[in-house]
Amino acid sequence: MPDTLYDVVILGSGPGGLQAAIHASRKKARTLMLGRMDNSSLYWAHVENYCCQIKISGEEVLKTGRKQAESFGAEFRDEDVLAIEPDGPLFSLKLESGDEIKSKTIILATGSSRNKLNVPGEKELLGKGVSYCVDCDAGFYKGEVVAVAGCRSAAAGGAVALTNFASQVHLYCGELDVNEKLRQQLVETGVVLHEGVTIKEIQGENAVQSVLLDDGSTQAVSGVFIELGAKGVLELTAMLGVRLDENMKYIDADKKQRTNVPGVYAAGDICGPPLQMAKAVGEGCVAGIEAAGYAKKLETA
Amino acid sequence: MPDTLYDVVILGSGPGGLQAAIHASRKKARTLMLGRMDNSSLYWAHVENYCCQIKISGEEVLKTGRKQAESFGAEFRDEDVLAIEPDGPLFSLKLESGDEIKSKTIILATGSSRNKLNVPGEKELLGKGVSYCVDCDAGFYKGEVVAVAGCRSAAAGGAVALTNFASQVHLYCGELDVNEKLRQQLVETGVVLHEGVTIKEIQGENAVQSVLLDDGSTQAVSGVFIELGAKGVLELTAMLGVRLDENMKYIDADKKQRTNVPGVYAAGDICGPPLQMAKAVGEGCVAGIEAAGYAKKLETA
Ligand SMILES: Cc1cc2nc3c(=O)[nH]c(=O)nc-3n(C[C@H](O)[C@H](O)[C@H](O)COP(=O)(O)OP(=O)(O)OC[C@H]3O[C@@H](n4cnc5c(N)ncnc54)[C@H](O)[C@@H]3O)c2cc1C
Ligand SMILES: Cc1cc2nc3c(=O)[nH]c(=O)nc-3n(C[C@H](O)[C@H](O)[C@H](O)COP(=O)(O)OP(=O)(O)OC[C@H]3O[C@@H](n4cnc5c(N)ncnc54)[C@H](O)[C@@H]3O)c2cc1C
Repeated sequence: MPDTLYDVVILGSGPGGLQAAIHASRKKARTLMLGRMDNSSLYWAHVENYCCQIKISGEEVLKTGRKQAESFGAEFRDEDVLAIEPDGPLFSLKLESGDEIKSKTIILATGSSRNKLNVPGEKELLGKGVSYCVDCDAGFYKGEVVAVAGCRSAAAGGAVALTNFASQVHLYCGELDVNEKLRQQLVETGVVLHEGVTIKEIQGENAVQSVLLDDGSTQAVSGVFIELGAKGVLELTAMLGVRLDENMKYIDADKKQRTNVPGVYAAGDICGPPLQMAKAVGEGCVAGIEAAGYAKKLETA
Repeated sequence: MPDTLYDVVILGSGPGGLQAAIHASRKKARTLMLGRMDNSSLYWAHVENYCCQIKISGEEVLKTGRKQAESFGAEFRDEDVLAIEPDGPLFSLKLESGDEIKSKTIILATGSSRNKLNVPGEKELLGKGVSYCVDCDAGFYKGEVVAVAGCRSAAAGGAVALTNFASQVHLYCGELDVNEKLRQQLVETGVVLHEGVTIKEIQGENAVQSVLLDDGSTQAVSGVFIELGAKGVLELTAMLGVRLDENMKYIDADKKQRTNVPGVYAAGDICGPPLQMAKAVGEGCVAGIEAAGYAKKLETA
């Protein structure tokens, strides 16, 4: 096989892509992982809800997973894919470096980048009090005062859930856009709703200390949850004709992680909620095994 | 809520059940895990293909996961469930101890017990050379001589896959029952086929050293793979009216891990292949979140 032809090429080296690489390479498929490790959602995270490791840093997890996949023979290139197109029974990929490679199968594991507030302090304090995931991080704020940004049910539902942990929850949004029941739950759980007020800056040295609001006032908080929904990295999938779900946000994969395009699989956040490491790893395992099997079959066909 | 009423009761404390308990309890659902830890398939395993831990012992994994789930408030009882029945919108469970509990939701994570050869040495040398999973353990036998027991495609396909690692692979079976293509692959990959010969005993002190055959001869091997298929623990599911897949072997759960019975979820090996820890954990995550959400909704309904 020429040295630019792979059995399995995986776009993404977050937990979904890494687990896919482990399972594909253990099936003796020639496997390549692509994508910058520090673009994984996990890179800045501290994880305590992944079985069975008590507390782990995202960076550590990603480095270990890469070493593990490489030990089974998977290759790794620290660059993104710019374009993919079908090429007979194969796929042709153009990389950032200008190199072109071919593969019998593709696994899409490019994650889902969350919508940003785009205010000063957001990037600097990510993982130091700024979070995009109530489900992941609520437990870190027992007895603390926190802020939530967002107008829809993800934000309002997140604020309600946070009242189980935090001592006070402030919800900031332009105009609240939720159903009556959720609005009532905000009242019942004592969420402090600031309609028409938005966050202009997240302040703090090494940890979040306060938010500066557009009315000029400041609120002391130790956490800021940004719940503006997620935006998928789905341009590449369009080139392949891969079908999305009805909201055009995530890839519509089946239980074998197959997309509608034969030879193209998907795993992890790009397949939709829950956006969690455990789910990404589970889907990666299935996608890796399935893609390796498909590549083997092409060979003998 | 009376102290015998739970939001989520999980049958099983393998990786699927543990991850479900972690996610359900972090959603503040009152969660109970049941089942003997040393009945998990993982208990005797050494795992090297789970992202992102290089090499871990199954026992260690299970103990850590239990501690982790308990730290989020999940409770644990080291006993099996004898019977479940619907009880209005709830479920009633009878435990080994004679205790009865109720729950708003059930997660079935009871794994899948593999069919045994039932020969001396099999149980004693499990994890010390005896394996029920080529996909999991083939990599440990680089350059070694191994035996495979079984007559169907799982055994023959496993033997072929093992030739990528082992120096010699012996396949023992009463009467080979596979298609022509697979039979030919056995020949091409040099698997030594012993039709009509079966394994009577697995021998070795602290590690497998040889197999004793029913023709009285002995073959030196360092690994024995038993590939006789899996038998699910599905009696309980029948009591609930849970639908199985077409082969009546596994539970037919959807992508949200729902079964056909509202309030009953399933995760892990009991949902079918690949029988892998990563998949169990991914499905457990989804089942835990979904069950907790269902229990919350019952409350406010
Ligand atoms: C702050 C924070 C905290 C979190 N905490 C937790 C937690 O406690 N527990 C938990 O379970 N989950 C947590 N999550 C969620 C978790 O990080 C994600 O669910 C997980 O990383 C998803 O894995 P993935 O493999 O699908 O995608 P990602 O990990 O996001 O990886 C995507 C990969 O795709 C690559 N990529 C993108 N575009 C291209 C391209 N064009 N070509 C090639 N490669 C490309 C990226 O470089 C990256 O390597 C958290 C997320 C955030 C943001
Ligand atoms: C020798 C061996 C090696 C393996 N190696 C690997 C490997 O390297 N990598 C990998 O990914 N996978 C490996 N596996 C597979 C892995 O162990 C399984 O995929 C995984 O354990 C499945 O998890 P589970 O939670 O679905 O079920 P299990 O881990 O099997 O747990 C089932 C649980 O259900 C409980 N239970 C059963 N009946 C009842 C009842 N009536 N009431 C209450 N509880 C009940 C049991 O007590 C147990 O706690 C291996 C398996 C074996 C046998």
